[in-house]
Amino acid sequence: MKIGLIGAGRIGEIHAKNIFQTKNAKLIAISDINTERAKILSEEFNAKVLSADEIIQNSEIDAVLICSSTDTHLNYIIEAAKAGKHIFCEKPLALNLNEIDEALKIVQACGVKLQVGFNRRFDPEFSSAKKLISESLGAVLQIKITSRDPSPPPVEYIKTSGGLFCDMAIHDFDMARFLTGSEVSEVFSMGSCRIDPQIGNLGDIDTAITTLKFENGAMVVIDNCRATNYGYDQRLEIFGKGGMIQVDNKRQNEIILTSDWGSKKEKPLHFFLERYEESYKRELNSFLNSLEKQTPIECDGIDGKMAIKIALAAQKSLEENRPVKL
Amino acid sequence: MKIGLIGAGRIGEIHAKNIFQTKNAKLIAISDINTERAKILSEEFNAKVLSADEIIQNSEIDAVLICSSTDTHLNYIIEAAKAGKHIFCEKPLALNLNEIDEALKIVQACGVKLQVGFNRRFDPEFSSAKKLISESLGAVLQIKITSRDPSPPPVEYIKTSGGLFCDMAIHDFDMARFLTGSEVSEVFSMGSCRIDPQIGNLGDIDTAITTLKFENGAMVVIDNCRATNYGYDQRLEIFGKGGMIQVDNKRQNEIILTSDWGSKKEKPLHFFLERYEESYKRELNSFLNSLEKQTPIECDGIDGKMAIKIALAAQKSLEENRPVKL
Amino acid sequence: MKIGLIGAGRIGEIHAKNIFQTKNAKLIAISDINTERAKILSEEFNAKVLSADEIIQNSEIDAVLICSSTDTHLNYIIEAAKAGKHIFCEKPLALNLNEIDEALKIVQACGVKLQVGFNRRFDPEFSSAKKLISESLGAVLQIKITSRDPSPPPVEYIKTSGGLFCDMAIHDFDMARFLTGSEVSEVFSMGSCRIDPQIGNLGDIDTAITTLKFENGAMVVIDNCRATNYGYDQRLEIFGKGGMIQVDNKRQNEIILTSDWGSKKEKPLHFFLERYEESYKRELNSFLNSLEKQTPIECDGIDGKMAIKIALAAQKSLEENRPVKL
Amino acid sequence: MKIGLIGAGRIGEIHAKNIFQTKNAKLIAISDINTERAKILSEEFNAKVLSADEIIQNSEIDAVLICSSTDTHLNYIIEAAKAGKHIFCEKPLALNLNEIDEALKIVQACGVKLQVGFNRRFDPEFSSAKKLISESLGAVLQIKITSRDPSPPPVEYIKTSGGLFCDMAIHDFDMARFLTGSEVSEVFSMGSCRIDPQIGNLGDIDTAITTLKFENGAMVVIDNCRATNYGYDQRLEIFGKGGMIQVDNKRQNEIILTSDWGSKKEKPLHFFLERYEESYKRELNSFLNSLEKQTPIECDGIDGKMAIKIALAAQKSLEENRPVKL
Repeated sequence: MKIGLIGAGRIGEIHAKNIFQTKNAKLIAISDINTERAKILSEEFNAKVLSADEIIQNSEIDAVLICSSTDTHLNYIIEAAKAGKHIFCEKPLALNLNEIDEALKIVQACGVKLQVGFNRRFDPEFSSAKKLISESLGAVLQIKITSRDPSPPPVEYIKTSGGLFCDMAIHDFDMARFLTGSEVSEVFSMGSCRIDPQIGNLGDIDTAITTLKFENGAMVVIDNCRATNYGYDQRLEIFGKGGMIQVDNKRQNEIILTSDWGSKKEKPLHFFLERYEESYKRELNSFLNSLEKQTPIECDGIDGKMAIKIALAAQKSLEENRPVKL
Repeated sequence: MKIGLIGAGRIGEIHAKNIFQTKNAKLIAISDINTERAKILSEEFNAKVLSADEIIQNSEIDAVLICSSTDTHLNYIIEAAKAGKHIFCEKPLALNLNEIDEALKIVQACGVKLQVGFNRRFDPEFSSAKKLISESLGAVLQIKITSRDPSPPPVEYIKTSGGLFCDMAIHDFDMARFLTGSEVSEVFSMGSCRIDPQIGNLGDIDTAITTLKFENGAMVVIDNCRATNYGYDQRLEIFGKGGMIQVDNKRQNEIILTSDWGSKKEKPLHFFLERYEESYKRELNSFLNSLEKQTPIECDGIDGKMAIKIALAAQKSLEENRPVKL
Repeated sequence: MKIGLIGAGRIGEIHAKNIFQTKNAKLIAISDINTERAKILSEEFNAKVLSADEIIQNSEIDAVLICSSTDTHLNYIIEAAKAGKHIFCEKPLALNLNEIDEALKIVQACGVKLQVGFNRRFDPEFSSAKKLISESLGAVLQIKITSRDPSPPPVEYIKTSGGLFCDMAIHDFDMARFLTGSEVSEVFSMGSCRIDPQIGNLGDIDTAITTLKFENGAMVVIDNCRATNYGYDQRLEIFGKGGMIQVDNKRQNEIILTSDWGSKKEKPLHFFLERYEESYKRELNSFLNSLEKQTPIECDGIDGKMAIKIALAAQKSLEENRPVKL
Repeated sequence: MKIGLIGAGRIGEIHAKNIFQTKNAKLIAISDINTERAKILSEEFNAKVLSADEIIQNSEIDAVLICSSTDTHLNYIIEAAKAGKHIFCEKPLALNLNEIDEALKIVQACGVKLQVGFNRRFDPEFSSAKKLISESLGAVLQIKITSRDPSPPPVEYIKTSGGLFCDMAIHDFDMARFLTGSEVSEVFSMGSCRIDPQIGNLGDIDTAITTLKFENGAMVVIDNCRATNYGYDQRLEIFGKGGMIQVDNKRQNEIILTSDWGSKKEKPLHFFLERYEESYKRELNSFLNSLEKQTPIECDGIDGKMAIKIALAAQKSLEENRPVKL
């Protein structure tokens, strides 16, 4: 399987490295609007520097990984689909539902496969938790998702991110759909700016609690914050008729040091690069497997669309201070 | 300090036992609408059986403990206040805010002290957590309160309980006020009947998630359920600028048994009698101390009123499916 | 059941308090070589001050609790037995095996009951662990007992204590017998003075590891130290064919505080008064129950003798640097 | 750096795979007495099949990895040293101390580097614990090492393994030296056959407790067993003047499942391939780094010799039932 990478930022680099360590795929070419950056990565991973268009039109390439900025996603998806390339696209697909629908139609018409980068579904802990639901819990009553970043992104990023719900909580909305296996019927969110006034000045929030009703009766609550002083807080709790599943944070090590001030463990891993290292590998393998074995994509375009749909409804709920139906 | 007990049910018995083991108080008399029951307790704890009125009018008695059914609370409070007795009353004070206000005015006019039985404030773990907030967290951003019962009360009880919010979540509303040290500005709740259709037939719910905005900016989410298969689930999580405080469930013992199926601990303690054994002792001591040393009551009539005010707003939010301001 | 207390030190006070809170026993009289001390306790618990002899000869008294210094234990046991009193005696019975044998013969001849104060057998965690062995482990292969004090006793105490094995590890030797349900066949110990040179100057050690072979094949290792900087370290680990049981330390509370330095719990409870509060109550209840219901004593004179026998063998092993058979 | 692998068993395969994923080394050739096995690995990792001698004499190869059976180690070491190859050798170097001395002299005379495969020193948890000793504990008083296998090796292997101390506990003896940074002065061991009578019939034991005195005053106790019913039990506990460090087992995941039988986590990882996956990678990197940067080997020939010296003393202690000085 021969791969082209569009977008050589932090996430692009992760994927490049994971392709490099995979036996059954090869990174052929890399593009980035910053060609210097593309060059560095291409040397490290033994690939060519091409433009995004050249990658998409390159007959040698089977699949493209789109890791560029959100506003470019749909164009690249459409072009790649038309060029017959399979597509892996980072989240969010886009911020406009109609445009997403248009793009997904084209993808389908072209008969190519599209995976969206909700990598957390592939986290060993979370995917084991998902399996445990059906094995041990039965009907899900309540899910609690904690998702807090160690520190806010740069203000520049906030400006174009689409806001906390579309940029950050979107992973949690997808996780809620993944775990319940059902669709959201109603969203209510509350949020405020408690961490950094600059975020508030841009009209965004940094602290939020969102509650979701699902069609199958499950209730989900998600708490988000753009900053903690203790690292990346990523936890799940699933409560059902058969019991409760809890997934705690991961740490650098599990050593316990006991002294006159008490017993201490390391704080949680710093951020997504550390916490989800394994899930990035597994989502790539899942994508390559689906292509190789012609099996369904585990996290597809509809998943990408539904998460943004929930995020937009949460944003509306916040603005209008009322529950919003989907 | 000489005490009269009105209401000799499960909670009355706890208080009777705790008075018995206290050096600086003596249980003089017990009343119950079921005189047989009053008789059993009076023999066990070496007290007289009297009627509620006789207790309230008894010149030997300094304070009354009101543990009778909710609909009798305010009358007994008013009569006791007028008779110059200090009062400890179980929660909820009543289900009607105006009537509560009337009673509290009389209590104040009579110059007696009134404590309301939100015992969880006195739990060693929760009160330590409260202390840790000011010592270690600083500004509180988000609080999560998990409060699930092991099994629903009898259907007969549900009929007059005032519903999940007034009967069960009221403890959690008080805990939220206690931990934030602030007042609720807005409530949104979602709820449904997932556990027992009989509860739904009575117009009540058994599963709920409630989100609260506080005046100081804190956001609180409470998840309630009338049943688990693993015992009484009573946990706190407080997230602030200085870090996070977590209070887990308590177990019979902390032994870890490891075998071919994994590593196991006991499930949480079964219910409130086991989980809050210590907090009932401490709330009684706090009441007796306040009387003896003329210090302010730690959980007073206003606390009793505010919790029911939040509960009624949560009920309204559920019925009208919208956030309700207080 | 009417009780006389001989010895009003720290342990005596615990027992006095526990008798006071028990319904089916009454503390009649207290003696101590320090009469001022006896007076204080007698006022607190509403008992008379008598001499030890007066207590033993008092016809009103059913049982005596011997909490005086070790060198007085056997004399009081013998006198009390001859006076027909049941006896509860603190550990160790004495430091001389022949003298213990003599005393036990007299106790038996007089037909009174004798319980020895190995209170840890009655600890809720340890006694649950013991039950779990037969329920879940089957044959025991290895047991590890960790037993470290927070700080050394006063040098004056060390002088007459009989040394680390007879004074401190003796509890652990009893625990090993209790858990294995078998007798020691061989002991090997190593020890040194690492904490306080004054202890070494008195010919004693403060740090030791002792290994025991039991007749049923179980191997036990005990690690002792006279000081930690983190409180009282009291843990068990039992490994058998059916798995492993672990009993961890107890803490003031189980709150987890997470901040930029990691996640922290309280250190272990400070010392035996805190850690074994419950076990002192339960051992007293067990004694009173055995007297009342004429059932066998749970921790009797033979148990008291065997523990000191192991301790003396451990001491010999240390001195001769070789394994010692019992 | 070009590598030749001698011995293509389970451990050889791990090293082959780790070389394959390393950028700065290349596996050139593989030998095994079972040429079919060598062929399979050589195809998987794109290397040649050669004889051990051909590898040692191959001028293209910089370093050899010796993963063949223990009795062949010293010959290969001597030949490789004489051929000017750097050497990585699996543990134990051999079972005879004089022969080890001879070989180490030749290695030194030839000026090549030799690393011994005590991979656990490179485990992220254990190496962090080692660092924490100097940072936080200061003087070490007692160390407890638990090391239990999930199931015994085949009887055929037991026959030539040198026994539990030389084959299995040798890792723990090295860990004790690593953690204390000191040398053993005396060993006492007890052991018996409790798991499998076939092991006893061969004159070996399957269950042992070994206590070690170190020159710096530290006491170490190691408990070993050839079988558990709950997986691979690999834990450390280090107690010093500044507190205590505990390293627990690792699990497949840390999910907690709570239901009517309690709260459960996964059992420990099954065996060394899973538990020490990361430490094998790190020991190889350490070896390659030492060669590349001309820095000292982190675990050298003397370490290899000392561990076997302790193991032989432990064996002698068991046979003669007495402490043995080194």
